This record gives sequence, structure tokens and C-alpha cells, in this order.
Amino acid sequence: MPHGVDAVHAIAAMDFVEIDEWCARIRAGDTRAVSRAITAIEDHDAAAEPLLERLFSSTGHAYVIGVTGAPGTGKSTLVDRLAADYRAAGKAVGIIAVDPTSPYTGGAILGDRIRMQAHATDSGIFIRSMATRGCLGGLARATSDVALVLDAAGKQIVLIETVGVGQDEIDIVRLADCTLVLVVPGMGDDVQSMKAGLMEVADIFVINKADYEGADRLEQQLAAMLQLVPEADATSRPPVVRTTASTGAGMEALVSAIEELRARDKASGKHRVRTIEHWKERLTDLLEEQIAQRALHGSKGQSLLDTLAGEVADRKKGPYTAVHELLARVGI
Amino acid sequence: MPHGVDAVHAIAAMDFVEIDEWCARIRAGDTRAVSRAITAIEDHDAAAEPLLERLFSSTGHAYVIGVTGAPGTGKSTLVDRLAADYRAAGKAVGIIAVDPTSPYTGGAILGDRIRMQAHATDSGIFIRSMATRGCLGGLARATSDVALVLDAAGKQIVLIETVGVGQDEIDIVRLADCTLVLVVPGMGDDVQSMKAGLMEVADIFVINKADYEGADRLEQQLAAMLQLVPEADATSRPPVVRTTASTGAGMEALVSAIEELRARDKASGKHRVRTIEHWKERLTDLLEEQIAQRALHGSKGQSLLDTLAGEVADRKKGPYTAVHELLARVGI
Repeated sequence: MPHGVDAVHAIAAMDFVEIDEWCARIRAGDTRAVSRAITAIEDHDAAAEPLLERLFSSTGHAYVIGVTGAPGTGKSTLVDRLAADYRAAGKAVGIIAVDPTSPYTGGAILGDRIRMQAHATDSGIFIRSMATRGCLGGLARATSDVALVLDAAGKQIVLIETVGVGQDEIDIVRLADCTLVLVVPGMGDDVQSMKAGLMEVADIFVINKADYEGADRLEQQLAAMLQLVPEADATSRPPVVRTTASTGAGMEALVSAIEELRARDKASGKHRVRTIEHWKERLTDLLEEQIAQRALHGSKGQSLLDTLAGEVADRKKGPYTAVHELLARVGI
Repeated sequence: MPHGVDAVHAIAAMDFVEIDEWCARIRAGDTRAVSRAITAIEDHDAAAEPLLERLFSSTGHAYVIGVTGAPGTGKSTLVDRLAADYRAAGKAVGIIAVDPTSPYTGGAILGDRIRMQAHATDSGIFIRSMATRGCLGGLARATSDVALVLDAAGKQIVLIETVGVGQDEIDIVRLADCTLVLVVPGMGDDVQSMKAGLMEVADIFVINKADYEGADRLEQQLAAMLQLVPEADATSRPPVVRTTASTGAGMEALVSAIEELRARDKASGKHRVRTIEHWKERLTDLLEEQIAQRALHGSKGQSLLDTLAGEVADRKKGPYTAVHELLARVGI
């Protein structure tokens, strides 16, 4: 019997009632049950897998919006404003603030607490910040799993906020149904110097702090750049929306642009294509992880890995020869 | 027969003479052959795997030194100076400048060209800059493979230079035998705000631009921080060396600190432990990649993945159930 299923069964037998009740409470939107699930995901707790698998049939209803941009572009303010607007329209909202620990994002946890207090009286908004633990590739996956939990908990809109400085952050927003890339006038980050990968993930460009000098020039630069992108269908070029999130100016137009994109992607089948692409990547990652776990499972697996690594370190074997010996252990 | 070995045999049969000659030229230190190998690694060329496997027995002689620090700490100047000092001592030197494309590292390619010209008359120094292609996890692996090629080409010292802003860069320097973390006085980056992961990888701290005001205070801060690190053996605490790379001041002490560390790690067996840890990680990565390639190999594998991703997207199946079907395809 496959090891993974084994583990699921063992946990299921042990905690059957508890996991069932936990799922029921998450589906009912219980904040403490949701928080506990997120902690389990962050801590790589063994309960996270069976929990997610059971919650899975209740997911697929939330619309996930990624919000990214350089430090200082006003992401938190815009995300809070978007959340309030969706709440006013009667939608349940979840916010995931991803905070890769770096000198550039210090103070995010404090800010998060202040934001939670601002929304504390509204049970329709759930905010959670996630920090880097171990590798960032793992953070993208954890963020995706947390989005599933919020989805199962009945959040109709899930906002993922992350600072757009590296490939990791791009991987995080790539899991969204719609990605907003924030730019601000006069930050010295002309469109030419923008990270290419960041431009490519943008479904909607938001010129925030649009009351600052240079907004017209920035919009012209963006338009010129977007002209260069070859598109079969010119209507699929990302729209550019101007906002001043601190005052709320332009927010209505932004929500309209998001909803228009959502309707169009659904009608054209693009949303489905994107969702399937997302799951192809996730399944490939899971597959790699599961097989490696089995090949390296137990003390025999670990001691084989130790021995082979030693032989490679001593140049008695090449790395590919060593990998074939590990493959033989799982019978392929 | 395993697919991976198949592919190796196919290439070997086709290009047997060519790859043999290519390896021979790399071992002889031919710069063009080395450059071509690095390009093959960067481009994920099918020839890279069999080439590396054949070169592997000629590797394990180079000492790999990672150099990292925030932008503006003088990494390139220090690396150039170290390279010149090792050259003066008769060692062949390779430099890999890793340049994650980001707003913070613009202009690196131009700088690299200028640096290459400075060393152009010295065939004992090889410089290559590597930029982000695809995911950065892949960049750490590619950097490691390039270090192997330079090792096989007879470089006795390989310097890897990367800007220390993210987890990716930490992964890159973790493959080194010895990692220097550069800090400079008065940059506002007090030791308290330094990225924790960066502190942990440091084998030697270098206070560069030590002629700037605040060097004493910075050294006191570092010493205070290092006191907090619990160590079984206080002698294994990272030493702190002051340099002014632009004038060469302190470089002799830095080279001594590196050579002392190298001798101590070799004598204590720490170097071997570290090398084996490195290969355990590399083998696990390779294993994951090889199995996923097989499970998803060919049009049948791809169409199974498409079908399963569609079923998951439609919530007909959970992700773990889908992964078990993929596992069944490779017979486990």
C-alpha cells in the first residue's frame, strides 16, 4: 500500500472525529478553526494533508486576487480598501499578506495587527500574514493551501498581497485568478526598469497614488509598453486603472475592471485553462515530493542516501549513477 | 530500461567523439570549451547531463568561496582583489557572478564586461556572470553545476558572488565550502536588521570599507551578536575581518582567515560533513526531477496530467487522489 495513503489512514483512524468536526467548523467559517488549519499548513503538520483533501470538495468558489508591487506602492492600503468595497457588496473576504522576511519589509507583522484591529468588528473579513519559513518555493505552495482553506470557509474573495521583488513573489501571485500589479508615479522605477516577470503576470495595472506628479507620464509609458506586446486579441491587453487608495478615488473603477475581467475569463474559458494549468503545476510538485518521500523513507532510505552522498562526495560515483540507485529502491 | 539512462546512451551514441573531445578540452582548461559547457547548463541543453557526469571524476579539487552581502557592500571589488591575490599565489581562479535580475542589481552585465577586460591578459582567471532564467531554485542548481565545470577545468579557487537579498541567494552561497558575508559601516543596516538566514551561512564576516566611520561600532555589534550564538566550540565562531578592498588593506588577513578555516574544516572532518550534506540535497532534487520526468513522460503522461488537472479543477477528485494515479503510472 502506498505510504502516503497509509499515513492518511493512520491519521484518519486516530483523529477521525476530530478532523471531521474541524472540517465542519471551517466550512461554517469558524475563525479559530480556520486559524488552526493555517498554522497546521505553515508548520507542515501531518494533519494538514488529510484536512485539505477533505475540505477540497467544498472549494472552487472563491475568486483569488493577487496584489503585488514594489515596496511603497501602497499595497496594504489598496487591499484594505478592496476588502471593504467587497464587504459593502455583501461578499465574505479573506486576506493573506505574504511577508518574505527581508530588510525591505520590516514591520509587516505590526502593521498586520493594526489592520486586524481595524476590521475586528467585521466577522466577514479574515486577515492572516504569512512569513517565510524555510524555502520560498514552499511559501508559494503554503499560500495556495491557505487560499483553499479560506475558500472552504466560504470566503468569496481571497486577496493575496505580496511585495514584488523576486521570482518567489511572482510564483505566489501566479496562483491567483487575477493579478494586480501596482506602480506609482515618480518612484524612479520607470517602466523600463520593471522586472520583466512582474509585467508578464499582470492582468490589470494599477497606477496607485495617481494624485502624485508624473501619473500621466507613467500611464503613457505603460501604454507604450503594452503596445509592444503581441496579442492575438487586443482586448486581452491588461487594462490600466488609476487609483488613490488612501482616499478611495478610483476604487469603483478598479472593482469594475476586476469584475469585467472575471466575467470575460469565465465566458472565454480562459479561467478554466488557467485553473487547469495551476493544478498541473501543483500535481507535478506533489508528485515529486511524494516519490522522494518514499524513496528516502525510513532509516534504510536515509542511510542509502547518506552512503550515496558520501560516494559522490568522494567521486566514487557520479550524481546520476547515484540517483539511479535511489530510483531502483522505489522499483523504477 | 530507465528513461534517464536511455537518454544518456542516445546522446552518447550520437555525440560520443564530440563529448569526449569536449571533456578533454575542458579538462585542459580551454576557455571556449568551458564557456560552451556553461551555456549548455544555462540553456538546460540535453548535452549538459552526460557532460557533467563524465567530467565528475575530475572534480572535487576546487575550493569554492561564496561572497554575499547587501547591494553596495563592495562584493565585486573584494572578489576581484581576492582573485588577484590567489593568482599571485599561483592558483587558477574562476569567478561566477550570479545576478538575479532585479531592480537592485541593474548594470551587472556591463560591469562584468569591464571586469573581464581587466583580467583579459591573464588566462588563469575565468569570469562568468549568470542571470536569472526561470525559477531561482534552478539558478542555485545551475551555479553548482557551473562550479563543477570550473573545478574540472582545473580552477583551484572558485569564487561565487551574489547579492544577499533573498532566500534564493542564500541557497546559492550554501553550496560553497566557505561563505563570506560582507557588511559595511553606516549603511543603516545595523546587525539587528540583517536577514537571519544570511547570518547563519556566514563562515567569515568581512567588514568592508573599514575606513568608513562606524567600523568600530559595527565590529562591536557583530561581536555581541556572535556571543549570543551557542556553540559547542567557541573557536568555530565566525571570525570578523576588516578590509578596504578598494585599496587592498586587510586582504592578506582575509586570505589567511580563509586558509585557516579551510585547514581547520579539513582536519576536523567538517568539510567532509558539509560536502556530504550538499550532495544529499542535490541527489534528492535530482531524484524528484527524474521521477517526475518519467511519470509525466510522453504524450500519454501529459494527457493523463491534463485529465487529472481538469478533474481536480472541477473538484471531481482531490489533489492527493490524483497524485496517487500518477504514482501508479510509474508502478509505485
